Parts: sequence; C-alpha cells; structure tokens
Amino acid sequence: MKRILLTIAYDGTNYCGWQKQKSPEVPTIERELEKACRRLFGHQNLECIGASRTDRGVHALGQRATIDVETTIPTERIPLAIRGYLPEDIVVTEAKDVSQNFHPRYDCVKKTYQYKIWNAPYKNPLMSRYTELIQGTLDILNMEKAAKYFIGTHDFKAFCATGSSVSTTVRTIFDCYVEKQGDCICISVTGDGFLYNMVRILAGTLIYVGLGKILPQEVPAIIGSCDRTKAGKTAGPQGLTLLKIYYDSFENSLTD
Amino acid sequence: MKRILLTIAYDGTNYCGWQKQKSPEVPTIERELEKACRRLFGHQNLECIGASRTDRGVHALGQRATIDVETTIPTERIPLAIRGYLPEDIVVTEAKDVSQNFHPRYDCVKKTYQYKIWNAPYKNPLMSRYTELIQGTLDILNMEKAAKYFIGTHDFKAFCATGSSVSTTVRTIFDCYVEKQGDCICISVTGDGFLYNMVRILAGTLIYVGLGKILPQEVPAIIGSCDRTKAGKTAGPQGLTLLKIYYDSFENSLTD
Repeated sequence: MKRILLTIAYDGTNYCGWQKQKSPEVPTIERELEKACRRLFGHQNLECIGASRTDRGVHALGQRATIDVETTIPTERIPLAIRGYLPEDIVVTEAKDVSQNFHPRYDCVKKTYQYKIWNAPYKNPLMSRYTELIQGTLDILNMEKAAKYFIGTHDFKAFCATGSSVSTTVRTIFDCYVEKQGDCICISVTGDGFLYNMVRILAGTLIYVGLGKILPQEVPAIIGSCDRTKAGKTAGPQGLTLLKIYYDSFENSLTD
Repeated sequence: MKRILLTIAYDGTNYCGWQKQKSPEVPTIERELEKACRRLFGHQNLECIGASRTDRGVHALGQRATIDVETTIPTERIPLAIRGYLPEDIVVTEAKDVSQNFHPRYDCVKKTYQYKIWNAPYKNPLMSRYTELIQGTLDILNMEKAAKYFIGTHDFKAFCATGSSVSTTVRTIFDCYVEKQGDCICISVTGDGFLYNMVRILAGTLIYVGLGKILPQEVPAIIGSCDRTKAGKTAGPQGLTLLKIYYDSFENSLTD
C-alpha cells in the first residue's frame, strides 16, 4: 500500500463543491475523483482525503488530495491513466509518492487563492464562468492600498461567514495584492489557512473599497471590529480559484 | 424605421454557430438574438443581418449585426433593455444608429480573429472551453516567423475547407502575429475577409510549425501550392474568437 498525493484542477461550475455529500445524487468533485480512482485501481473502498473544501461553484488549479493504493501503475503515469475515468471538467495534473504519515490538510503550510473580477460596463460571456462582474469603475490604487492591510496575523472574525464553528478565527496572511490586466482585476491571497468564505468576503470588501464605499485606511478598523457586518458582501463563488497548496520545502521543490 | 448596428459577444460552446438553420430546434446565436429582438421591440417579423457567420463552437467578442426597428427605446439603452431576453451566454455590448444603406457584411473593411492554444502537458479545465490543447512543446519563435508569411495579398486556396464555393480565394491579411502569456499562446489575424475555416487552418499550420512538422520558410510554398493537403490540420473551433469587425473610419472612431 502506498500513499499518493494528487494535484487536481477543476471547473467548479457544475459541482456542489469539493466535499462528498450524504446523497450520492449530489455532484461533487471528491465523489467524481473517488469514483475514478476506484475504477482505475479496482479498490471498492478507496477514499480520497482532500486538502481544501472548496465551495459550490469555486474552481481549482492546484487542489491536492491523497489516496492509499496497492498498484503496479507507476505513480507518474497516474494523471494520464485516470483521464478516461474523469469528467471533462476535472483533471489530475500531477501524482507523487508521499510518506505514510503525510496528511494533505494537516501538513499544508500555506495556500494561495485568486479572486477574479471582470470590471466593464457589460458582461463578457467568455469570462463570466470565472469572474465576478462589477460594472462600476473600480479604483485599483485604493484596492492595492487596502489589500496590504490584510497582511499579517489578525483575528479575521469579521471575514468569516456567520454560523461557522472554528476553534480560532486568527489567521496569518503572508501576501495579498491586486493586479489589473485589461478589464480583469485579480486579487491574490496567500495565507496559512482561511476561514469559511474568508477570501470571498475579503474580495467583496476590496470591491467596496474599489467602488469608494469603504476607504483603504478603514480596513484595519474593520478587521479589529471582529464584526461581519462591517466588512463587504461575500463575492460570488465563480470568481474564486484555489491556485496552490504548499507543503514543506521538500514538497515545494517538487511542485514549483 | 431606423437601422441599428449591434455589437454582440457570445460563448459559442452551446450553439450550432451564428446562422439560423431551417429547423427551429437547432440552437444558433442568430435565432436567439432575433427572438430577443422580436420580444423587446414587438416586431414579429424582425430579422437580423449578421456580419460574420461564425461556426459551431466558435466564440465572439465583437460580432456585429443590424436590425431595422420602429422603437421609442433610445438606441444606447438597447444593450441593457435586451439583456433579460437573451440567454446568459449572449450579450449585446453596444448599439448605435447607422444609415439606411449601411450593410454589416458589405461595409466591413476588416476583421480580427484570435486563436488561442493551451500549451501544457495537461488540460487546464478553466481554459478548455476557449483554447485548443497542444501537449507537445511549441517553438514560439518559429511560429512568429511563420506568421509573418501570411501577411499580404495571396490566393489562400490551400487554407480553405474543401467543398466551399466562393468567387475568389484571394484575400488580404493585414496583420498576423503570435503572443505567449504563460501557457497560453494567442494567434491574432486581421484581414479583409476569411475563407471557410481559413483561420482554423492557419492556426493548425502554425501549430505544425511550432511542433517542428513544418519549417517557417516552407509557408510561402504551402500558400503557393493552393493545395489544402499541404497546410496543417483544421484546429478545433473552441480556440477561435471573432474579436472585432471594422467599418469605415466613421464607424471605427466609435468603437475603438
């Protein structure tokens, strides 16, 4: 039996998120991946352990999951071998052997998410699956200024969907910046972990800054308030992509 | 009665091309647009005249079409007013009054198409609706060199799908270039007009150049041969986007 770490990319549009649900009718990425692995390896009880529970409609380019399998298929051939068992919108891009005590969630040291906004008077039908449309002009310089205030270790309770239960709402953001490419504005956030809906609330807050509803210098007080109602609206799921999951330096060197 | 020129953007994935087909069951962009216009303006016999007959699965950001209508809706409000009558993947981005003798196809002076390639070992599910996947490494410098040979007035019979009947296969290409952005390679072509499948055959030929199957300096002889079998394969429709349709200087100034 060996433990294999898979890197997975998916278009989340047609799925109810990563995580398997009780009803087998509910399409989720985890269920599709497990089904494909079970067929490829012929293990009827095979289960995946995912690194990040992406929400309904959220995309990924660098999701990670482990599987434990007995197989003669060389690990590096798995992405190719599994292709025929997966739907068109889910792709395994990498597979590597890891030690038996490796855990995709607990061993994660940081994650990067991207949030994309299409900022134009009209929807671009070639971008709408992967961006949030904002028709009012966004002030990018102010959004850049505001983004910097998220960097550091803070209690992000104001940026956590109400009703979620976690032991602590303190998280460390290593980097947060805004880039503009034509009509597309991209927010990149790297942190040691994220609360439920945190990136989408952070994006919604930066959108409010861009629209002039919040000043950049008001962001520290919003964080400090620990009050969800002070932050911006939760931006739509389709703009969000899980870009990368980082492990220790050993793992890093293999995926960079 | 006034003639209005519409600019239309669409994701062509779910359509059998622009042009209306005899069977009303066949989904086409033209049919959807006409249906929306008929509802908005209450003209049961309203017809659109499109500038370019994009194929099944081809996308557009700058398709153009005219309609003749009697309406009190201010022209500039039409994009907003029609939105609720159109499916999610078709957007009218602009509307302007034109003269009664304006024709969207005959008055066109040039068109720009883009062909996008995703060049990576694995499919990117966030790009696969809008790119052709090429897994072998492409030599961009050679593709750039080859692209230059298309510029000028040539008989493009070798780049026309067999079976199509046109009075002349001579066309003028004003510009043709290749750009790389990460794993995405974009071919842009501007010409006075294009033969059936011409851009997709040109893209397929540049892909062969990138893969080393054709040398850049062989392109003039391929054009000169007027032999379809000498050019590359027809690249897939999903990589193609009609970017812009240019009219005279008067029109140009309004859309640039």
